[in-house]
Amino acid sequence: MIPSVTGQLPDEALDALVLVLDEIRLGRSRSRSELVERTGLGRAIVSQRVGELIERGLVVEGDPGPSTGGRPPRQLTFRADAGHLLVADLGATSIDVALTTLDGRILGHHDEPAEIEAGPEVGLGRVEELFDQLLLTTHAVPGRLWGIGIAVPGPVEFATGRPTSPPIMPGWDGYPIRERFATRHGAPVWVDNDVNVLALGEWRSGVAAGHDDVVVVKIGTGIGAGIICAGRLHRGAQGSAGDVGHIQVTDDPAIVCRCGNIGCLEALAGGGALGQAGEEAARDGRSVRLQVALDQRGTVSAQDVARAASAGDPVAVTLLQSAGRRVGSMLASVVNFFNPSLVVIGGGVANSPDQLLASIRETVYRRSLPLATRDLLIQRSSLGGLAGVIGASSMVVDQLFSRDSIGAWIAQGDPSELAPVR
Amino acid sequence: MIPSVTGQLPDEALDALVLVLDEIRLGRSRSRSELVERTGLGRAIVSQRVGELIERGLVVEGDPGPSTGGRPPRQLTFRADAGHLLVADLGATSIDVALTTLDGRILGHHDEPAEIEAGPEVGLGRVEELFDQLLLTTHAVPGRLWGIGIAVPGPVEFATGRPTSPPIMPGWDGYPIRERFATRHGAPVWVDNDVNVLALGEWRSGVAAGHDDVVVVKIGTGIGAGIICAGRLHRGAQGSAGDVGHIQVTDDPAIVCRCGNIGCLEALAGGGALGQAGEEAARDGRSVRLQVALDQRGTVSAQDVARAASAGDPVAVTLLQSAGRRVGSMLASVVNFFNPSLVVIGGGVANSPDQLLASIRETVYRRSLPLATRDLLIQRSSLGGLAGVIGASSMVVDQLFSRDSIGAWIAQGDPSELAPVR
Repeated sequence: MIPSVTGQLPDEALDALVLVLDEIRLGRSRSRSELVERTGLGRAIVSQRVGELIERGLVVEGDPGPSTGGRPPRQLTFRADAGHLLVADLGATSIDVALTTLDGRILGHHDEPAEIEAGPEVGLGRVEELFDQLLLTTHAVPGRLWGIGIAVPGPVEFATGRPTSPPIMPGWDGYPIRERFATRHGAPVWVDNDVNVLALGEWRSGVAAGHDDVVVVKIGTGIGAGIICAGRLHRGAQGSAGDVGHIQVTDDPAIVCRCGNIGCLEALAGGGALGQAGEEAARDGRSVRLQVALDQRGTVSAQDVARAASAGDPVAVTLLQSAGRRVGSMLASVVNFFNPSLVVIGGGVANSPDQLLASIRETVYRRSLPLATRDLLIQRSSLGGLAGVIGASSMVVDQLFSRDSIGAWIAQGDPSELAPVR
Repeated sequence: MIPSVTGQLPDEALDALVLVLDEIRLGRSRSRSELVERTGLGRAIVSQRVGELIERGLVVEGDPGPSTGGRPPRQLTFRADAGHLLVADLGATSIDVALTTLDGRILGHHDEPAEIEAGPEVGLGRVEELFDQLLLTTHAVPGRLWGIGIAVPGPVEFATGRPTSPPIMPGWDGYPIRERFATRHGAPVWVDNDVNVLALGEWRSGVAAGHDDVVVVKIGTGIGAGIICAGRLHRGAQGSAGDVGHIQVTDDPAIVCRCGNIGCLEALAGGGALGQAGEEAARDGRSVRLQVALDQRGTVSAQDVARAASAGDPVAVTLLQSAGRRVGSMLASVVNFFNPSLVVIGGGVANSPDQLLASIRETVYRRSLPLATRDLLIQRSSLGGLAGVIGASSMVVDQLFSRDSIGAWIAQGDPSELAPVR
């Protein structure tokens, strides 16, 4: 039953190894005694597994900590700088890249405008260039490359890492993103949609930490949601869970969505709809501020509306409040159905003044059932502009230190070859 | 590391015991070899745990099965008749009780009309009488009473088994249902709302078996849903998940719900609303069949509408179709958000002709996104009138054979005392 360092571990031993590593890397246990107490594993098992993790370079044993009477405990720490990760968040109109440690700390970061519509060759080619730049410009890149994470603004089949009929990503359907990066970098690659990645980031490192049932709504060009259910990301049967932009929020037959249906949320409250409503207000001469934006760039964006609202433009404020009520209406249904403890509002439009959040809150608290909203929190995303890359890094870490991945490294048999292969 | 039969098991051994028992009682593994293959546990561990389960009377070893060359394997079977369960499903207007084996097979059953509004003393007093009758009239009641399960038509705090502000259950708020039965019968008691119980029943023994993400909608006097998320019942942060009856499905200000909001599903498509619409049609002379029902009983129920539709009454058919479209509209939102692989339609109104199911399907497939409905099934509940008691039995079994319960029995230290105490 005592596992060798190389070769396949029996299932129980692997479970124990994953448990011990999670305790240490998530900062829950800091000594063997704490591990024994918190995991319920025997002292001998804990010592074996800790020894194995130290030998593999994933855990270091520090100086003895403060004594509490007996032998002073030696602090165990996760070696977050045993290697590094490369992550990219591709938005509809932007690319964000970062180089992080194995616990998601950002060591290098770069963002720039880019059109996802330019297709995968242009977009991913640019990501490759930016990755190379990060590796050159980041000071003291730790260890080897352990994994790569890519977020895209459309549905992804997570098991294969391929976009599936993404509506705003022409040319990307079925594109082998994983294979492209795995071949170039010789490291495992995970791809997911931007809202799942945002939800993971908020849950691992943001405002959703400690919550088991969370809905994270991203209001950008479109509207989508990431769902944490019982402490795990819920992708749904086809991986399309969280597609809330096409939930019907009005019977009004005049509201026709690009999906062909009537009354979709996105057609009323998405960034595109908000910009269009702002442009109409500018053309009708109802808002001087929006008219200035229109004159300067020939169009009005959701960001223009948000800026005008911040500056007190009454038409822009009304537009944001109206969008907030529509998002709130969708969320009221979601809260009745799912009963989360927390709703997080993120995305470009959400980084706007308080009117949007206030209208969302007001509508949810009015429309949802009292029991479901008794302790419900509705908060703004806490990760700001870095939410995408932090989330992508969380996705890679979760996958790297999953039971399956760890089992695969160990089966490889060479503890010096730390980089896992998928 | 070898556990004694009495006394507390170490965590790893308890995990293995629960795993082995689940394999055998759910019929997945039928021999020690299958257990080794399917669980990944070592042969010695499997033999120890099987020995323990045999000693405790939960597993029996049958005659040697067919030989496949070597020593013929001995069949392992769960002793479902090691004890019995008592379960009750209290509806708005009915009581169902049953006596079942430890795998939920019904040995005795009784149902009768009853008004939940009569309060807990009357309702639970009657359940006690019916339990006593079942114990007297059921032929060869197996073993001791292992557990009791109660389903009620309103929200329940599962941890305490108490109803929490149930809207259609006056006098039940906070009533200690668990304590009442535990004191009388000396067995553990679990209480949940009727839709969660229905979902568990369909998932363990019905049409939802094998699906990981399921929404079970019950259309009765009210409308509610039970949710299976990643293979577990999802109760939500406050236990109110699945409260879909108050999701808004129209902007029409004329539709005022008893909850005070406008356009709730229940106000348009619940059993109450359907009966009322049928009564109006009868009074207006639009439907002869519904008029007969009105004359006979002074009121028209949802069941009357369903029966009239079955008989081809065009007004009743139209009413059912309209209700189906409203339920479908709510489900389209739920499907976009949650992306289940299966939606199950159950409850009194759902046991009606095909028009209702057809309208629900048509609306969901039209209104939900193609990816979410690509492999989506929408089916009728398969458990019929017994769904409630089968579900309540599934709930008790799930809890009885959970890790926590098994750990508790073992800590008691006396294998002859099989009945667990909570």
